[in-house]
Amino acid sequence: MGDWVSDDYVMASYLVHQQAGDFYKKAQGIAVGLTVGSWTDLPAERQEQMKKHLGQVVSVEELGEDEAGNRKAILQIGYPVCNFTAEIPALLTTVFGKLSMDGMIKLVDLQFPESFVKQFPGPKYGIEGIRQRLGVYDRPLLMSIFKSCIGYETKTLAELFYQQAIGGVDLVKDDEIFFDDTYAPFERRIEACAKEAERAYSVTGKKVLYAANLTGPVTEIVEKAKRAVEAGASALLLNVLAYGYDVLHRLAGDPAVTVPIMAHPALSGAVYPAPQYGIRASVLLGKLMRMAGADFVLYPSAYGSVAMERTETLAIADELRMDAFALKRSFPVPSAGIHPALVPQLYEDLGNDQIVNAGGGIHGHPDGSAAGGRAFVAAIEAVLKGRTLAEAATESDELAKALQLWGGK
Amino acid sequence: MGDWVSDDYVMASYLVHQQAGDFYKKAQGIAVGLTVGSWTDLPAERQEQMKKHLGQVVSVEELGEDEAGNRKAILQIGYPVCNFTAEIPALLTTVFGKLSMDGMIKLVDLQFPESFVKQFPGPKYGIEGIRQRLGVYDRPLLMSIFKSCIGYETKTLAELFYQQAIGGVDLVKDDEIFFDDTYAPFERRIEACAKEAERAYSVTGKKVLYAANLTGPVTEIVEKAKRAVEAGASALLLNVLAYGYDVLHRLAGDPAVTVPIMAHPALSGAVYPAPQYGIRASVLLGKLMRMAGADFVLYPSAYGSVAMERTETLAIADELRMDAFALKRSFPVPSAGIHPALVPQLYEDLGNDQIVNAGGGIHGHPDGSAAGGRAFVAAIEAVLKGRTLAEAATESDELAKALQLWGGK
Repeated sequence: MGDWVSDDYVMASYLVHQQAGDFYKKAQGIAVGLTVGSWTDLPAERQEQMKKHLGQVVSVEELGEDEAGNRKAILQIGYPVCNFTAEIPALLTTVFGKLSMDGMIKLVDLQFPESFVKQFPGPKYGIEGIRQRLGVYDRPLLMSIFKSCIGYETKTLAELFYQQAIGGVDLVKDDEIFFDDTYAPFERRIEACAKEAERAYSVTGKKVLYAANLTGPVTEIVEKAKRAVEAGASALLLNVLAYGYDVLHRLAGDPAVTVPIMAHPALSGAVYPAPQYGIRASVLLGKLMRMAGADFVLYPSAYGSVAMERTETLAIADELRMDAFALKRSFPVPSAGIHPALVPQLYEDLGNDQIVNAGGGIHGHPDGSAAGGRAFVAAIEAVLKGRTLAEAATESDELAKALQLWGGK
Repeated sequence: MGDWVSDDYVMASYLVHQQAGDFYKKAQGIAVGLTVGSWTDLPAERQEQMKKHLGQVVSVEELGEDEAGNRKAILQIGYPVCNFTAEIPALLTTVFGKLSMDGMIKLVDLQFPESFVKQFPGPKYGIEGIRQRLGVYDRPLLMSIFKSCIGYETKTLAELFYQQAIGGVDLVKDDEIFFDDTYAPFERRIEACAKEAERAYSVTGKKVLYAANLTGPVTEIVEKAKRAVEAGASALLLNVLAYGYDVLHRLAGDPAVTVPIMAHPALSGAVYPAPQYGIRASVLLGKLMRMAGADFVLYPSAYGSVAMERTETLAIADELRMDAFALKRSFPVPSAGIHPALVPQLYEDLGNDQIVNAGGGIHGHPDGSAAGGRAFVAAIEAVLKGRTLAEAATESDELAKALQLWGGK
């Protein structure tokens, strides 16, 4: 019954572990308890009125036992959309608010009717809109992360931005822990980096977007984003889990915020990795990020220092790029520990519509950040032409040195 | 070294599980990687400038192995407060943003210098301020939860409010899943319940606060809270995890929001229960809620349907009530499955400064919600006088019936 679709219900799927007890009874308790509260003791007239608000058990599928002897099952529950509002806090509180505390239970999927999804902004630009801004249509994009931001002055950051930009990257992003910007105030460094982007353009002929870390009180953050746009911002970075999905929703939904928004997965590791608790990464970083309006979503790649299982990373990318009613597609950004030797694997996984994102893999290059960028550019060109990196390295000194350092295939 | 205190650092404690690897090296990687990014390769002059931004390893304590053969340790890291701003999103992103995704790691404690805590609002009223509003100083408070809110009209909810109020409860709260209020708009039902509170006062001589569920776009939520105050609100309920701690911070920090705020723990079960991942409940529902400004904090009791370990529930209550610089104290509200027979245990655990909170334990009373409230009032009076519930039940028919239904001691 996994294909149960209804215009009137959001369907949530849960993985439940329990020592004992009837799974169907548990599912019934959820369907009633998290909607109308009680059912069998309501008078018939009241039941008639409340029927449309009552949750539905869609399916209960037992999965056998885990190693600890817990029985497992997937429960699917339909929640009437008329019970809540089309906002992520309302949705999550309804389907996994109290329930998250009720034993070993993990929210593993959500399915929405079109009428519900339509009320969310989704990405304002999406993959196609970002490609248009950059004028790049036929390859993965390349992003560089500032090695460090804390404690640096605007002037220094601007220089470091230029070093990254002339290496041929398409985007540069702030460190997500960049909060105290006393030495490099938000709008001032946006202006400075915008100038450096132009200077690099005059050399390379390539546009570069700068994703500045958007921070501050949630009550002021949309206004701050607008000031960033006025200062010449080309993208914004947001720690979505820390600030709340609704902040992303409001940024994406505001027509005056005319730049793409990059969602950082900070804190998500407190929610997705436990097998028996939390929310699956493909929901947290895939489906919800896209609905709320992320144009790019960072997440741990399967290959780096901070690793996630490959199937999970692919599931996130699927959610970001699959057909989903009228929602634009979001760029997947597998991150952490990426170096040029990983480009063929990343390309095999996701093809063109992804962002190759590196920090240490660019700045750690023996000849500096610009050379680090060029090594990635050469690696991306190679995979597009169906060449091995070893072959390409014969024509790119930067790639050769990168492969020497990080190992190639 | 658990007592390491510094004015310049926030100290985070992590429980780490790992198969192999040096814990001290891991700690060093965190201290450098989550602050200045790199250290040993910086020139001496730069090191001098960056020194104050560098994280510190405070201690590494190995704890042996778990059943699966993973080695365990507690790592304590000091983060310079000058690296971030005094806001929960900045704090959490810094100490557990990227790190939350880096293997089996759980954030188990945070310690702050006074200078940092001072920048947070904390509870605007706290235990003492709420007692003043109610004129009740010498007993636990009693709260009733609407049995169900979804689908009911203002008039019906107002009647149900009155039924709860005349039972002698001090507070009534909305269901936390009450989002679509088409039939009972937020401000209209606040006005209606305020009237019912007055009507009940004329009968019982007791004040009753009504915590209405505050929902809607985060960009409008503080303004909505102010409209609620103008409509006669006496308290507000907020799903803090779903909306973000900073929303609570802004509500508590706004002088025009002149009502106490009740924090609901919805979604927290996606974060605290896994032993190897997430954030400990006493941090999530204790320390952070209080700093951000919750006057009341709900959390699962150790005795109800949705249970938490007793030591954890006591740790939350400790964080809410202990001396913490100039912060006011928050009311602990152990919740879920509370009935009158549990009152002696709750009192033994937390004494007077708590809220006894019941939904089914009030509405499920054989003689209805008002009788259910009176049964709790009798139970609370009994424990204050050092009497057993059985003794008190000889003078309270409502309590006798409650004990018969839910079992007494």
